[in-house]
Amino acid sequence: MEDEKTLSILVVGSVAFDAIETPFTRVEQALGGAASYFATAASLYNQVNLVAIVGSDFPHEYLDFWRSRSVNLAGLQVEEGKTFFWRGRYHMDMNTRDTLDTQLGVYADFHPVIPDQYRDSSLVFLANIQPELQMEVLEQVSGARLTVLDTMELWIMTARPQLTEVIKRVDVLLMSEEEVRQYTNQASVVIGARQLLDMGLKYGVVKLGSYGALLFGADGTYFSAPSYPLEEVIDPTGAGDAFAGGFLGYLSTVALNEDGGYAVDDLKRAVVHGNIIGSFTCGDFSIGALRNLTLTDVATRYKELVRYSHFDPNWVSTRR
Amino acid sequence: MEDEKTLSILVVGSVAFDAIETPFTRVEQALGGAASYFATAASLYNQVNLVAIVGSDFPHEYLDFWRSRSVNLAGLQVEEGKTFFWRGRYHMDMNTRDTLDTQLGVYADFHPVIPDQYRDSSLVFLANIQPELQMEVLEQVSGARLTVLDTMELWIMTARPQLTEVIKRVDVLLMSEEEVRQYTNQASVVIGARQLLDMGLKYGVVKLGSYGALLFGADGTYFSAPSYPLEEVIDPTGAGDAFAGGFLGYLSTVALNEDGGYAVDDLKRAVVHGNIIGSFTCGDFSIGALRNLTLTDVATRYKELVRYSHFDPNWVSTRR
Repeated sequence: MEDEKTLSILVVGSVAFDAIETPFTRVEQALGGAASYFATAASLYNQVNLVAIVGSDFPHEYLDFWRSRSVNLAGLQVEEGKTFFWRGRYHMDMNTRDTLDTQLGVYADFHPVIPDQYRDSSLVFLANIQPELQMEVLEQVSGARLTVLDTMELWIMTARPQLTEVIKRVDVLLMSEEEVRQYTNQASVVIGARQLLDMGLKYGVVKLGSYGALLFGADGTYFSAPSYPLEEVIDPTGAGDAFAGGFLGYLSTVALNEDGGYAVDDLKRAVVHGNIIGSFTCGDFSIGALRNLTLTDVATRYKELVRYSHFDPNWVSTRR
Repeated sequence: MEDEKTLSILVVGSVAFDAIETPFTRVEQALGGAASYFATAASLYNQVNLVAIVGSDFPHEYLDFWRSRSVNLAGLQVEEGKTFFWRGRYHMDMNTRDTLDTQLGVYADFHPVIPDQYRDSSLVFLANIQPELQMEVLEQVSGARLTVLDTMELWIMTARPQLTEVIKRVDVLLMSEEEVRQYTNQASVVIGARQLLDMGLKYGVVKLGSYGALLFGADGTYFSAPSYPLEEVIDPTGAGDAFAGGFLGYLSTVALNEDGGYAVDDLKRAVVHGNIIGSFTCGDFSIGALRNLTLTDVATRYKELVRYSHFDPNWVSTRR
């Protein structure tokens, strides 16, 4: 078993500025991008090694914040030009959204380079960038104990063969329910998830948004994690990336089984952590709700979720 | 505490013929109607007293089946004419459907009459008929230990004041998530459910279809019940009515607390039973999957759901 101190989490993904409109309010030039949410969330648990690209307009404030959270920025490329920009508008249900504008800026020429000091990263998260770039990352890291892949509808539609190759190379795939249906063309998420596992994954996690998440294992594991009930959703942007941060973050704190794999109970806990971190993210714009979050806050929601979802395990029929 | 034998469940609702088209298959002249699903499901647990109306075209076969399941038919009115008929078509996602035809037949003049032998029914289920008829039922039963109300979008839209009066008179309200939003005009189901509880309910159950169900209590109870994962949904018609049958059916088998209320653990178990019975219902058209179901089958899925949804209750943060 490695010394716990050596356990770091590599993330490759986008760092961006978001402009977001909801039916209730709006925000301009907020810190966004999958890697921003992930790094902020996962750094609650362990050191995060960030690989991304930003323009010369990117504020030092965020870099200072991440350094204060033991996010290693050696792999953050800073190039002359503009940082990736995204403008979106949420519908009344806060679940669906339209993209109003995308400006790639310096991201257009991004190729991930993994610094030498990152090469012993134990856990690797490939955020939802182009599958070709995800593959470039996989070819630069070896010996990771866990590789986790995220993606998005755009790549399922436009880069399916390349995405398929990446799926075949990783341990865990995170997908929303809609993405599972799109990729597998199966109405049943249960059948779709099994089809994905048959491609060689050890685990598949199906994110259900406000309904929680499902864990499917190649070993037959099935687990349904409850969502944390929210009275108000301010902005769901980044909740899925923060979910991944909680999931990998938690797994970075546990020891492996003797056979080199994770205990199923740890994977279940990891999905619950993902849901909890995702739920906090929805409580504010950008990484606002994650900045001052502590693992004590996470533990409080964890205990609540136990109370909210467990029921008498011992009922048996005494009739007929 | 009453003798268990006296615990019977009154249901008032529709008995109908359904013609159903799904993307995969279709069925004509199948037994349908909320009370049909409910009575078949709840009679797994205890005696059911049925109040409904059918036409002279209604087959004896179904009556014989219900009698064999200890469904009391003294309150089933048989009138010259046609039985209520509904034709619907499900969309590809099997969650949304269009009504293609509705023929009220003898149901047009239905007024529920509760036979004397039903008056000591301990649990009362008002299926999704017009609120005026639901109120007529409430005025004929008194002393029930539990009254449970179901409704549908049509009455929220067309009979809201009458529905409101009924909600104020019952103990438990079952609603789909969409119905909670429609009735309360709240985007948040958590806030919507609290608003409903404030009308005087003891409990509200929010049905989430394939995502399970939520229980909200006026005492602050919150419980999220997992759904049973299905590889295939043949026909979801009646799953909500069968859910109610499992919910009330289970509650009819337990003793009350000393204060005359149900134990919260029993209400949680009841929601789990509802989800399980609903899941079976989706496995076939009409009541096909409920005809030969036993409580042993229910107990098997109950144990599976424990395994599928429980996680280590004892995780605590050991850092920061």
